Amino acid sequence: MSLTLNLNSHEFLREAWQKQPRLIRGAFKNFNDLIEPEILAGLALEEGVDSRVIENHDGKWNVVHGPFESYDAFGEDGWTLLVQSVNEWVPEVQQLIAPFRFLPDWRIDDVMISFATENGGVGPHLDQYDVFIIQGLGRRHWQVGARVTNANEHCPHPDLKQLADAFEPIIDAVLEPGDMLYIPAGCPHNGVALEPSLNYSVGFRAPNTAELGAATADMLSQLNDIKLPRYRDAECDDFGPAYIVDAEQLAHARNFLVQSWQQLDLDHALLLVMSQSKRPLPQPEGDISPEELLSLAQDNETLLVRTPGARILLSPQRDMLYSNGDAWPIDNELLPFAKLLGELWDDRPVA
Amino acid sequence: MSLTLNLNSHEFLREAWQKQPRLIRGAFKNFNDLIEPEILAGLALEEGVDSRVIENHDGKWNVVHGPFESYDAFGEDGWTLLVQSVNEWVPEVQQLIAPFRFLPDWRIDDVMISFATENGGVGPHLDQYDVFIIQGLGRRHWQVGARVTNANEHCPHPDLKQLADAFEPIIDAVLEPGDMLYIPAGCPHNGVALEPSLNYSVGFRAPNTAELGAATADMLSQLNDIKLPRYRDAECDDFGPAYIVDAEQLAHARNFLVQSWQQLDLDHALLLVMSQSKRPLPQPEGDISPEELLSLAQDNETLLVRTPGARILLSPQRDMLYSNGDAWPIDNELLPFAKLLGELWDDRPVA
Ligand SMILES: O=C(O)CCC(=O)C(=O)O
Ligand SMILES: O=C(O)CCC(=O)C(=O)O
Ligand SMILES: [Co+2]
Ligand SMILES: [Co+2]
Repeated sequence: MSLTLNLNSHEFLREAWQKQPRLIRGAFKNFNDLIEPEILAGLALEEGVDSRVIENHDGKWNVVHGPFESYDAFGEDGWTLLVQSVNEWVPEVQQLIAPFRFLPDWRIDDVMISFATENGGVGPHLDQYDVFIIQGLGRRHWQVGARVTNANEHCPHPDLKQLADAFEPIIDAVLEPGDMLYIPAGCPHNGVALEPSLNYSVGFRAPNTAELGAATADMLSQLNDIKLPRYRDAECDDFGPAYIVDAEQLAHARNFLVQSWQQLDLDHALLLVMSQSKRPLPQPEGDISPEELLSLAQDNETLLVRTPGARILLSPQRDMLYSNGDAWPIDNELLPFAKLLGELWDDRPVA
Repeated sequence: MSLTLNLNSHEFLREAWQKQPRLIRGAFKNFNDLIEPEILAGLALEEGVDSRVIENHDGKWNVVHGPFESYDAFGEDGWTLLVQSVNEWVPEVQQLIAPFRFLPDWRIDDVMISFATENGGVGPHLDQYDVFIIQGLGRRHWQVGARVTNANEHCPHPDLKQLADAFEPIIDAVLEPGDMLYIPAGCPHNGVALEPSLNYSVGFRAPNTAELGAATADMLSQLNDIKLPRYRDAECDDFGPAYIVDAEQLAHARNFLVQSWQQLDLDHALLLVMSQSKRPLPQPEGDISPEELLSLAQDNETLLVRTPGARILLSPQRDMLYSNGDAWPIDNELLPFAKLLGELWDDRPVA
């Protein structure tokens, strides 16, 4: 199947990415679904697969988390099944990420797929992630608003956050198979199925300062070879009452934190963090030594397959390969192989 | 028992704290032990108490972790029992912290107590913590060297880190009951028991930049009311190969991290972190409402007792009380009570 994205990436990056929602009609010509609704429903029966059903019957919202045993109770219409990270479970779905590789690999989160019955939807909401939503089977009515900064949110169900107030749509369209929406983080959106339909959400993660800070701090702690500065009290011969943190002490602790981060060489730790996968990756069965791996790679019959969900990155100097929170030094001899690994999206024989 | 520390705190803070090891003879006059060796040994039989025995028989080191069932196997000499956070288990021991409250409460870690048989010791090592070691029962021969920055360490046992090379002692003394050593972080030290003896280590924590960063980031994530900035890609209409993190992208991520920490109001999160206890604090039995608590506090018969291990801090503006990672606003009316709580070290009736 050809999955060619009809999009001028340069123009898109300049005008829309992180700025403006956009509707791209016929983004994928003759789009064929990458999964059948029955297979998606079957996947959500499995332990370890992150899935939920959102029901909306006459404005009464309900959320049920998978794994499911049956869908009989949900009835004929008014519900949606959402399954996260389908690309990690169904290799065909991983192919849907390749067209979006004009964006950095480390930003990719996952492909979420929803199957909605007539009138099914998750309600008006906004996300902290940038997302491309591709219409597969069926049609959905989508509305998208401009970015809002201080939206009121409410929870019609403890596990469901929706917008409390109506929003002014700047996109209002019925999506047909192969059409695509781009929705930047913070833009309100609402999709309602006109008939049984599939939507594919290619999501991009954007860590907030605390998430990136926590991951980087954890990584720094694990890197035993880096000498990390330790807090020391300021020169002072009278700290005052022990239980009062006075303004000088607090400023001293804050400066220690901020300045030590400024002075640390964070690049290596950041690259390790960027290369971490969303979920734990499957590990090889049995122990395989680097020698065995190398001889396998030199075998003409070996097929290179990317583990879905793996992030494979090269450092700016192209002297280090990062994946899954690990790093390997790359010399000139290994560089072509490292690039092959980084580019790899279609299974291919080792050249 | 009077636990008066014979020390000029101003002179000590100017000349020694975080700088120079120091021997203080007769730091505590007529020092009476705060615990009996048998009670300490009994404590280390308990689940949940962090303890270990370090053995040294003719240079063969061994470490056994508690809880213990018996000490028979360790023999007559050449071993030490070390028990962490004894102040949290034995209220009398908590009293040993009070004399050190010329230092900020949030820096206090715990009181570790060791009971050593003849020739017992943990071997030459250095710590990342500032510590006061008070000699109780018996005598130990202590040697302390000047701060070293690039010490070679080795592990004679997987759980025991010692210095690989001998160090030049600048303190070399036999400690008698009531004598005290001050050892700043990074100074090599070695104590060998001349006879069955007790040492009390009053330790001060000094988080490194990753530890403080991780704790602060976790706290920021929990503070839902703070809007945390999210990573956004730099303006760019061509990111290049998706798998190469180029120098601009990496610098952009690094700047996001460092600058957002610089701009965030970290004070509240930092105070919450400073007030976290070393180990989970015991929780009150049953639910007690703020009203019940207040009426209890107004009852003349109520005795205020500090939970050992609790950290109770006041903000620089004295408008917020912090403890155990929580915060309570304090108004002028409540301030005297908040100060009473912060100062509290001896159990006392509510005035
Ligand atoms: O598929 C859906 O119904 C919801 C998709 C969505 O809101 C998203 O991907 O952000
Ligand atoms: O008590 C001991 O033997 C060791 C104490 C020590 O090294 C310390 O507290 O840092
Ligand atoms: Co959404
Ligand atoms: Co020590």
